[in-house]
Amino acid sequence: MLVIKIGGGAAIGEGGYTNFAEDLAAITEPVVVVHGGNAEFSDLSTRLGMPPRMITSSSGRITRYTDAATMDSMLMAYCGKVNKRLVATLRAAGVNAVGLSAIDGGIAVGRRKPVLRGSEDGKTKVLRDDHAGTLETIDPSVVQLLLQNGYTPVLTPPALGAEGVPINVDGDKLALELATALQANGLLFFSDTPGLLRDRHDESSLIDEIDTSSPESALGAAAGRMVVKVEAALGAVDRGVGRVVFADGRIANPIQAALNGQGTTVRRTSAVASQTGGQ
Amino acid sequence: MLVIKIGGGAAIGEGGYTNFAEDLAAITEPVVVVHGGNAEFSDLSTRLGMPPRMITSSSGRITRYTDAATMDSMLMAYCGKVNKRLVATLRAAGVNAVGLSAIDGGIAVGRRKPVLRGSEDGKTKVLRDDHAGTLETIDPSVVQLLLQNGYTPVLTPPALGAEGVPINVDGDKLALELATALQANGLLFFSDTPGLLRDRHDESSLIDEIDTSSPESALGAAAGRMVVKVEAALGAVDRGVGRVVFADGRIANPIQAALNGQGTTVRRTSAVASQTGGQ
Repeated sequence: MLVIKIGGGAAIGEGGYTNFAEDLAAITEPVVVVHGGNAEFSDLSTRLGMPPRMITSSSGRITRYTDAATMDSMLMAYCGKVNKRLVATLRAAGVNAVGLSAIDGGIAVGRRKPVLRGSEDGKTKVLRDDHAGTLETIDPSVVQLLLQNGYTPVLTPPALGAEGVPINVDGDKLALELATALQANGLLFFSDTPGLLRDRHDESSLIDEIDTSSPESALGAAAGRMVVKVEAALGAVDRGVGRVVFADGRIANPIQAALNGQGTTVRRTSAVASQTGGQ
Repeated sequence: MLVIKIGGGAAIGEGGYTNFAEDLAAITEPVVVVHGGNAEFSDLSTRLGMPPRMITSSSGRITRYTDAATMDSMLMAYCGKVNKRLVATLRAAGVNAVGLSAIDGGIAVGRRKPVLRGSEDGKTKVLRDDHAGTLETIDPSVVQLLLQNGYTPVLTPPALGAEGVPINVDGDKLALELATALQANGLLFFSDTPGLLRDRHDESSLIDEIDTSSPESALGAAAGRMVVKVEAALGAVDRGVGRVVFADGRIANPIQAALNGQGTTVRRTSAVASQTGGQ
């Protein structure tokens, strides 16, 4: 079983969905799709007069302030436009897709943190009514039920907080926790780069493979958000996910390419060897 | 098994969801919820600079012109905001809700009619790229799978047309076809009236009950859209639905009230008598 995360950047738009649909129609292994929707979310909320407000925490972490009206925009962009356009494209290609948010069936439940402190345009702010949160529990029951009956679940943030309030959780994190809960053979992250790059301005600096037993070289070369991604991938493999691949979502047959070794593959090489007879 | 349709008018907003949640948490019979979203759809598309364009056909039928950008608004309002806010409210009340569009799992597939002819503001128009359609097939498999496993499916238009294009289908019609396919014991329509009225301006002119063997009196008193509703209800009962109730969705405990006989109940009285021993 594979978990595939399709990034929500502008580079993988509706045109890109057909590339994924073609691969998913051909694949025999069960697949769970998780997608983002950030470009659509920002576009919609800006058109509705609520451009993104980015808050930098004291530790340097940048998060988007999400009040109730902005959460409505997130629901509309992620669960409405992106989820249903993607499902419609997949179904037309013969994939038996079912679109769900992580709210549905209690897939992801988290803790809301309504107060957001940090700086915005250099000014200190304390913003209330935020709808960000952290994942606390993953219940893949409804996802497993659909997989066992031949459906391809297509999942998206947000998750559910207490008292029926949706909370904005990271799509990569959702995919990772799901892949772990489902003990997936593979977790494939598709975005608008060829994989993990030593120099993010140079697509030829791709890191082909990271062995979980010796990740120091890759971590040493990584910076910023890439460190977080590598550490998360190492953690997932440690917790039983077969391999994690960071791959290009802008190309034809993106899933085939990633499974054939394009992009950056994170795996435990020794474990792979022992599974094939210890050679 | 009950099918409950919650109308998408402005009168049943997020506040109203909690009324339904409370009843659904207490009910022991399996329930499928179908909802509309027209007020949110019109509000969103107007805010995005696309106010509703209503086209009157030569036969007098009024339909909303839905081009691709307007369909995006429909997806966002119905499948994003309304579906997920409703599911979140239901889950917080203890209902194991799963939100789906009729696109998902192939629940409703229809034929798109891309050319819309009629008059707009008194001028004859031929509008292309419409996303309206008529339902052709209902496949309740994923709905049944969820019901059998203890979930409460929460469904919304649109449906899926050919080539991966979502199509705007009527929510009442979707609920009716689903109730028939599932052979529901009851189909309850909740909107912003106490039920079917002989005089739509007088809420005290409520029709309590319509017997399918003698609907003439009710049909004689009905006019316009109400005739369509009564005929659809009669047809559903003829095709095996236990009873159809038109009831008030603006009150506390709306489902309990409808099941206790408030609103307008359409049923085959003779069949009920024979089931209870022919007395």
